[in-house]
Formats: sequence, C-alpha cells, structure tokens
Amino acid sequence: MKDKTFLMIPGPTPVPESVLLSMAKHPIGHRSTEFSALLKDVYADLKTVFGTENEVLVFTASGTGAMDAAISNLVNPGDKVLSLVIGNFGERWAKISEMKGAIVTRLEVEAGCAINPDEVKKILDADVNKEYKIVTLTHNETSTGVTNDVKTIVSIIKEHGAVSVVDGVTSLGALPCKMDEWGIDVLVSGSQKGFMIPPGLSFLAASKKAWELHEKCLNPSFYFNWKQNRKSVIDASTAWTPAVNLFVGLNTALQMMKEEGLENIWERHRKIGTALRAGVKAIGLKLLAKDEKYASNSITAILPPEGISVPDIRKVMKNDYDIVVANGQNKLKDKIFRMGTLGFVSERDTITAIGALEATLNKLGYKFELGSGVAAVIKSLAE
Amino acid sequence: MKDKTFLMIPGPTPVPESVLLSMAKHPIGHRSTEFSALLKDVYADLKTVFGTENEVLVFTASGTGAMDAAISNLVNPGDKVLSLVIGNFGERWAKISEMKGAIVTRLEVEAGCAINPDEVKKILDADVNKEYKIVTLTHNETSTGVTNDVKTIVSIIKEHGAVSVVDGVTSLGALPCKMDEWGIDVLVSGSQKGFMIPPGLSFLAASKKAWELHEKCLNPSFYFNWKQNRKSVIDASTAWTPAVNLFVGLNTALQMMKEEGLENIWERHRKIGTALRAGVKAIGLKLLAKDEKYASNSITAILPPEGISVPDIRKVMKNDYDIVVANGQNKLKDKIFRMGTLGFVSERDTITAIGALEATLNKLGYKFELGSGVAAVIKSLAE
Repeated sequence: MKDKTFLMIPGPTPVPESVLLSMAKHPIGHRSTEFSALLKDVYADLKTVFGTENEVLVFTASGTGAMDAAISNLVNPGDKVLSLVIGNFGERWAKISEMKGAIVTRLEVEAGCAINPDEVKKILDADVNKEYKIVTLTHNETSTGVTNDVKTIVSIIKEHGAVSVVDGVTSLGALPCKMDEWGIDVLVSGSQKGFMIPPGLSFLAASKKAWELHEKCLNPSFYFNWKQNRKSVIDASTAWTPAVNLFVGLNTALQMMKEEGLENIWERHRKIGTALRAGVKAIGLKLLAKDEKYASNSITAILPPEGISVPDIRKVMKNDYDIVVANGQNKLKDKIFRMGTLGFVSERDTITAIGALEATLNKLGYKFELGSGVAAVIKSLAE
Repeated sequence: MKDKTFLMIPGPTPVPESVLLSMAKHPIGHRSTEFSALLKDVYADLKTVFGTENEVLVFTASGTGAMDAAISNLVNPGDKVLSLVIGNFGERWAKISEMKGAIVTRLEVEAGCAINPDEVKKILDADVNKEYKIVTLTHNETSTGVTNDVKTIVSIIKEHGAVSVVDGVTSLGALPCKMDEWGIDVLVSGSQKGFMIPPGLSFLAASKKAWELHEKCLNPSFYFNWKQNRKSVIDASTAWTPAVNLFVGLNTALQMMKEEGLENIWERHRKIGTALRAGVKAIGLKLLAKDEKYASNSITAILPPEGISVPDIRKVMKNDYDIVVANGQNKLKDKIFRMGTLGFVSERDTITAIGALEATLNKLGYKFELGSGVAAVIKSLAE
C-alpha cells in the first residue's frame, strides 16, 4: 500500500502534516520583512529549546554541518582535543577535529556503554598544564542507543577549563538538555530529529568562553562562520540564502513544541522510551545498552533473537507492516537494529511498533508468548 | 490578496506546483533503496546540466556553501589566488579565499562592466613563475546583472595552468555553460535558481586537475569534503543526512528540465532576457550593464528614472501588483533594482512584469508613453 510507510529510524523522523503543508508553499523572499518576522520568532524559540541566553545560529546543512561548524570555528592545527567516544557520532567529533589538524586523544568505551565521568576526571586532572583546549562528547549516541550523563561530565570539563563541545543532535527537543544551567560551551543539533521537520537545518549555540576561543581561530569556516551567522541572527536575518521552506516548517514545528511544553515533551519521550524497552524485554530480546540507567529514550538499539537476522527483521517490518527501523552502523551492522522514538512519536506509535515487531518475529519463527510485548508496553505506559 | 506574490528576485525563484507538492510528503529514509534510486537519477541528470563527465557533488547548503566547498578543498594558507571581481559575488570568492589564508589579488571592474579577457591574459602572462594556483570568477554576476565571457576567460586560465573556479549559481540551468567543453576546473551552482526548487541544495563538480590540487590541501572541510562526498555520489548515496525533501523536489524539477531540453531552456532565457531589456529601454529606463552584449539574460539590473526612488518602485510593485523585485546590494542599494527571469519564468511573466512596472511608474508620476514597454516586449518575443 502506497504512502503507509512510518519511519522509526533515528532520523529523518515523522513530520506532522501541518509542518509538511506549511512547507509546500512558494518560497518567500529571504530578505523580506515577512521572513524576517518569522526568523525573529524562530530564533527566540530555539533559545528556549536550547535552554540558553546565547544566540542560536541556524545553518542550512545537516547535523554534521553543525558539528563541522563547531570544530572549524575553534580549532587551530596542533591544538589538543579530548574526544569521549561511545559510538560513531562520538568518533565523528574526533575525525572532524583531526581533519582540522588537531591532535586528538580518544577516551573510548565498548558499544552499549556510556562514558564514566570518573574516567574523564582522571584524564583532565592529569592534564596539569591545561593542554586540552576542547573536550568533545555526544549527549545521545545514535549508533548505540546510549545517553551520556552530560550534566556531570560537563561540570568536570568546566572545572578543568577546557571548552565542552556537545552533540545534541538526537537529544534536543527529546531529552532534558539545559545548555546554560549545565554549563555546556558549544551545543549543536539538527532539524530532522526532535524538531520534527525534514533534514536540512542544523543549530549551534556557543558560550562566552567558546566565543573567546573562537577569537583565536586563524582560518575559521566561511559558510559556517560564527561571527557572520551571529550578526545575522541579531539582525533577524540569515548570512546566506537559507532553506526558506524548511524555516517555515521549523516555525510551525516550534509552535507545536511550545504548545506541548518542553517538560511535557521530555516526559513523553521518557514514557515512550521506557515502554518500548519494556516491550522489547518482555518478548525476550536484549538491549545493546549494558545498563538501562543510561539507555536512550529516543533511540533503542536491540539485539535480534538467536537464529534470526537483522536484515530479515527489517525486511518483514518494512514490507508487511510499513515500519522502517534502522540497521546497526559499521561494526554493529547486522548485529543490532535500532528503533527511533524521537520527535513526532506518540504512545500509540509505541504500541504499534511493538505489535508489529511481535508479528514480524512470529513470522520469522521466533518462539515467545504472543502479545506479551504489547502487554508490557501498555502496562508501562499506564504507570 | 493572499498567496498572489510572484518572486522576480534573483533567488529564491518561482517553484512549479508539481515540485512543491512532491516535496510535501513525509521524508523517506535516506539510506533506503528507494532514495538511492532517486539519487542515481539526480546525479546523472546533474551531469547533463553541468555538461560534464565529472561527478557532481550535492551539498545540503546554499550556494555560498558550495563556494566554500570549492575553496576550502583547494587552498592552503599562503597560496596565491587571482579573483576576477565584477560585483558582490566575485568579491565573495576573494573573501572566502582570504578566510582560508590565501593571498588574494583582485582584478576589479566598475559595477555594470564585465571582465575584459585581455586584462586577465596580461596578468597571467606576467606570472611567469606560475605563482597563481587558482583563478576565481563569476559566470553571471547577480548583483549587477552582467554575464562574463567564461569560455574565453577559462581558456586563458587553462593556458597559464591555474585552476579555474567558476560561480555558476545564477547561470546553470539558465545560460549556456559547458563545463567540460569550455575546460572549467571547478563549477558550483545552487538549487533556488535555474533548478527551480527552493533554496537548500548546492552543487559542485571538479576536473581532474582540480582533484590533483585537492590532494595537496592539508585541512580540507569535513562537511564539504570532496572525497567523502564523491564516494557517496558513486555509491548513489550521500555522505551525511541530506535534505531529503529537497532532493525529491530536485528530481521532479530535473525531469521537467529534461522534457524541455537544455538548449530550449537557454533559448527561453535568452528570449525573455532580451524582451525584458527591450521593455525597460522602451519605457526610457537605463540598464546598469554598460554594454548590452554582456547584459545578463537571467538578472536585469535597472536604474530608476530620475526623481523616483528604488524603495518606492519596490513598494508599489509588491503592494499593488504582488511582484517582488530586488534592491541593489551594498554600494548599489537604492541605486538600482533587479528583476530575475531565472528558472520557472515564461514569456507571459515578462509581459506581466513590464506591464506592472509601467503601472508602478505611472502611479509614481513618471511620464512616458503608457504601453510602450509591453509593446516592445511583445515585439521582441515575436522576433
């Protein structure tokens, strides 16, 4: 059946109809007073979602663009960077930094684990000469479904004095993330996740300390240039021609987010993530997250039952039940599948997802008590 | 009246309804076979529009992003760059190069003039030690409505041995531009112009010689990285999460362009540009282009009649006739207004535009023979 597909990948995520329709209009001129008024609202609302008084820069680019925008405005060749790596996206910070000429030290953990803040403290305490200029980390690791304790880690980085650079691509607008309160120096995110719009926009905010480090950056990016882009935010404008239609969609989505309320959005994600995991476990499947206390509420990484392959699960889920779930990435390919519950996702979707997963596993010959997953979801949601 | 606005700015340009509606669908997964099949078509069709056998990289970014992608993958600090500047966008090449640490020499001409190829030859002939690694130029200068003779200039650069880097943002898909035949080394363009889709995608192709220079680039951009992006093009994929909906729109637009045929598209723009200028002159207004032989067929920069202000013309055009025309940029602000005839623009639109301009000037008290502009347009179109 056409047009039935429902995305439960970690992004792009489902987009509300009102957002899609608001985007389906002729672009308006990006230097018009009408667009400038829209930008003013968008910039103000983004500050709320980021939990910051800093200006939030918006780039016409994907989340990786905002990550590049962070590093390429801070790093000079030869600078020392500490990268906390719990999966692919943590590794991406390290790679971007190396591309810019940084000397990168990695603190890496096994897939499914979070960073232990004590380990970070040990490394930074040993850095008595304050050689590390920057520490990069991932709030919510999309490749493993693990959420780092950013609040604690950032407080340790703050004590050391390095600039903390945090990937909030799959956390902002889904999981609690409070830039100013937690003392995050640079925070980036993307549009096709918690923000419920199609991919193409990404966001970055920087603290005063980060701006001071930026001042020392010799050859910052032109397109992603912080100064140029901040000037435009203050002028309710954009530095370059923006993806006008995506901005219109973003404005619609931000209104929806305001109506629901940020705390309620976080609570919805917590509830749904918890219920999804309850369903998965009730069927007898294992989570990749070694400890449920750091299992992500926006992305759940699941090991298939023995003897049943990830590609088969994905194929039946897609062909028979029109739900797209993601494979693992790189080393985790065919070892796990990932379900996103991120953005425009409801309790009903969680029941649907576990119901379809049950039907899929049943077809593939896995033996379990039919209905046990859905029952666990319903019970968890009712708590 | 709502929803009546017609954009005649140099971008964003009008978008066909079929493109808008194709974009108003739920995003599909960017790692799906369905999206990969779409990418394959898009990448092949872009080669045709570029007139090249080189892979065309697509960035989720505006045109300036593709310009940054060109320079940040070629230049090392201290490299010598020659920038041919006939307006703001020529100057942008120089600024991007300087941001990357290049030593830039500018060959600059008065607003409304094109680059004289002989001047370029003189400078490059004098560079006996081949110090210039790169020469940047603009095909169609959006800020002044002037088209450079890229074919001749590029042949001179080729003889010298430098890499030619050409801004084709407002020329590709509108004016004849043949990358391989003319020997252009790096050619960039953007989606919201001749390609008839909203802003948010931009394009870059590079010759073998440019790829060789890229190999020597020490700290190329990560997001715009040529290698990473080319690998993805060859795999019918994208390096990062792309603006899925804009790709879907692009595919629809490229089908339309194929149906019309590239030569026919060029001829349509030539006809419309010529007719628009005929109308403007018949009313008694002057073009900024000093010589009509290099006046752009996609953007026409016009001086207002004496005693009538550019803001007034723009205001009446917009409020009373729902046509948005652009002001001049920087030094040319309030000195000229600019009309785009770029992309999804027809003969009818040209008649409309000059008709509305006549009505506007009449309201503002300018004395001229009413109907003379439209008559000239009709005559020119009939030729």
